[in-house]
Amino acid sequence: MTYERPNIRDMAGYTWGEQPAQKQVIKLNTNENPYPATASVANALQSLRVDELRRYPQPFADGFRDVAAAAHGVTRDNIMATNGGDELLRLAITTFVDAGQTLGMAEPSYSLYPVLAAVQGCQVARVSLNDDWSLPQDFAAQLNAVDARLAFVVNPHAPTGQLLPVSRLREIATEFNGVLVIDEAYVDFIEPSQGYDAVPLIREFDNVMLLRTMSKGYSLAGLRFAYGIGASSLLAPMLYKTRDSYNTDALSQHLATAALAARDEAAVNWQQVRDERSRLSAALAAMGFSVVPSESNFLLVTVPDSAAAAGLDSQEKLARTLYQGLKQDGILVRYFDQPRLRDKLRITVGTGQENTQLLQSLQASLKQALQAIQGA
Amino acid sequence: MTYERPNIRDMAGYTWGEQPAQKQVIKLNTNENPYPATASVANALQSLRVDELRRYPQPFADGFRDVAAAAHGVTRDNIMATNGGDELLRLAITTFVDAGQTLGMAEPSYSLYPVLAAVQGCQVARVSLNDDWSLPQDFAAQLNAVDARLAFVVNPHAPTGQLLPVSRLREIATEFNGVLVIDEAYVDFIEPSQGYDAVPLIREFDNVMLLRTMSKGYSLAGLRFAYGIGASSLLAPMLYKTRDSYNTDALSQHLATAALAARDEAAVNWQQVRDERSRLSAALAAMGFSVVPSESNFLLVTVPDSAAAAGLDSQEKLARTLYQGLKQDGILVRYFDQPRLRDKLRITVGTGQENTQLLQSLQASLKQALQAIQGA
Repeated sequence: MTYERPNIRDMAGYTWGEQPAQKQVIKLNTNENPYPATASVANALQSLRVDELRRYPQPFADGFRDVAAAAHGVTRDNIMATNGGDELLRLAITTFVDAGQTLGMAEPSYSLYPVLAAVQGCQVARVSLNDDWSLPQDFAAQLNAVDARLAFVVNPHAPTGQLLPVSRLREIATEFNGVLVIDEAYVDFIEPSQGYDAVPLIREFDNVMLLRTMSKGYSLAGLRFAYGIGASSLLAPMLYKTRDSYNTDALSQHLATAALAARDEAAVNWQQVRDERSRLSAALAAMGFSVVPSESNFLLVTVPDSAAAAGLDSQEKLARTLYQGLKQDGILVRYFDQPRLRDKLRITVGTGQENTQLLQSLQASLKQALQAIQGA
Repeated sequence: MTYERPNIRDMAGYTWGEQPAQKQVIKLNTNENPYPATASVANALQSLRVDELRRYPQPFADGFRDVAAAAHGVTRDNIMATNGGDELLRLAITTFVDAGQTLGMAEPSYSLYPVLAAVQGCQVARVSLNDDWSLPQDFAAQLNAVDARLAFVVNPHAPTGQLLPVSRLREIATEFNGVLVIDEAYVDFIEPSQGYDAVPLIREFDNVMLLRTMSKGYSLAGLRFAYGIGASSLLAPMLYKTRDSYNTDALSQHLATAALAARDEAAVNWQQVRDERSRLSAALAAMGFSVVPSESNFLLVTVPDSAAAAGLDSQEKLARTLYQGLKQDGILVRYFDQPRLRDKLRITVGTGQENTQLLQSLQASLKQALQAIQGA
């Protein structure tokens, strides 16, 4: 006998990116930071003792909230700590979208959103990105037309890496009738000269929530610690009602606080990632890949046009061939078997050495594959 | 404007037990273990390095699951790791109870259950415990009558500490039509001579799930790590669909695995708690308190009958007076302002020294309070 609710029985679960057990794999498939966490985090870890774990953790992670509030120029009530970004995304749905109601997202986007919607039993309105991957001008209007209660916008966008300016986010927040969650998982990798800062939006709008995570910029994906920034009225029902009562543990609170307090140290890593992003992007373009301009720590690349003569099928086949070739060389990248992405690879920016190995492997696979195509 | 769902707007959140910032408080109010985690856990903490946190954690905590499976004589598919017991409770509701449907519980019981039900928008059927705090014989029948999809049974029970035998759990599992969650948060403190082991039930029934936590027996409340034991068919929708995709972090997995692997070390603490439970229980009885026989790490005690001459009001007043008197002496216990419990205190078993201080403070407060009553 099955006991689960019908919508759970009928839904498909999330598909995890490959997490190989072997540590020697060059792992450029799930957008982790290639550099370890900073010395301040290492010191914080060393200072921990097990007897501090005997008692329940601070239920609201107030120590972390105070550091985050100071970092962003807001107050403690504007900050909410969560067990990874996934928890904040889930809580946004649980709190703001009833079963049967609708939430909105761009397509393509983070594949977890529809899974979380299915758990809650709500509908998903998908707005296709334009051909150049920009967000359609009528994004909010389309979602208002179906009475969406919540919208997810990833910025910089995944899997393209493109950045929307704050002015465009402001337009959406103004026009959209529901809650706008701006998923800033990759925000730390934006070129500082862009002057991007969406935090002022949370003072202007009571329906805007920003998601930040320690997973990417702070090299702590294993820690599961993220936070929301928003109007206190927007965060309150999640903080005091829908959140699990002790949702973040004492270790994570301690390390995340140390990491955020020492964000200048992490910023050194961010600049390294940007420098490598530029180098990798130029090298891939030189090999014939077309590369979406990225403000993130990954690149979405389309396989070279030289395969296009044989049609889209041939390009899709080439992308799969390159993915497999890399894998055989011990290098994991992400291949999405879904519309508009089958002729592409998403490559996380690694260390200099990792990127060099990637380029060498790709060059070899590409040469072999193109010979096969031309020979066929 | 408020954006939350109507059921979220209208519900009340969970009430946390006091978690004082000052560490010198004698904290006997939230059933934490008085002894620190074992040497094996301390060693595991020392061996951790931050670069192990750079990547995502193992999504299913398989290393932990294998140790837990071996400990309980089941297979990996019968184990599911969660971010504290709260997550397993929430997932049980999310997975098995639709909005508008009903879940069942004993009254009184863990105050979180109705909060989680309110978040999901489902109804709660409460079955009152008998006068001696035993579970009514028709518990399952009452819940079947209202078509409850899920039932929570705490065993040993909170806040009474009473233990149901496995034979009684088997009766309930047989009769109840929905999913039976047996919350065994305090199982480690049961007298071994009782021979209690509910794990065989998960092989006999496809609707039984046991909840175990590292918070109490393993002195790791700050870690937020628990696990479910159940038929693989029952756990599968939670494991693969409703659970957050990386619900437990790498640090917690590592420490929880070390703790469970070295459970013989923790068992030394459990025996110390039992010994202190006996001593505390006898001393409180000698002072005139009536004490519910407990197989847990806490005691539910009714204030002495000497106050009963002046009626229940007087006993309730005495309980509050004692609670406040202890607090003034820097000792926190739990007072429940709810029917059937207002003349009682719930006292966590502390270390020998803590318990002695509790008894001294209580003796002084009691003498003073009884004089005041008799003088009035």
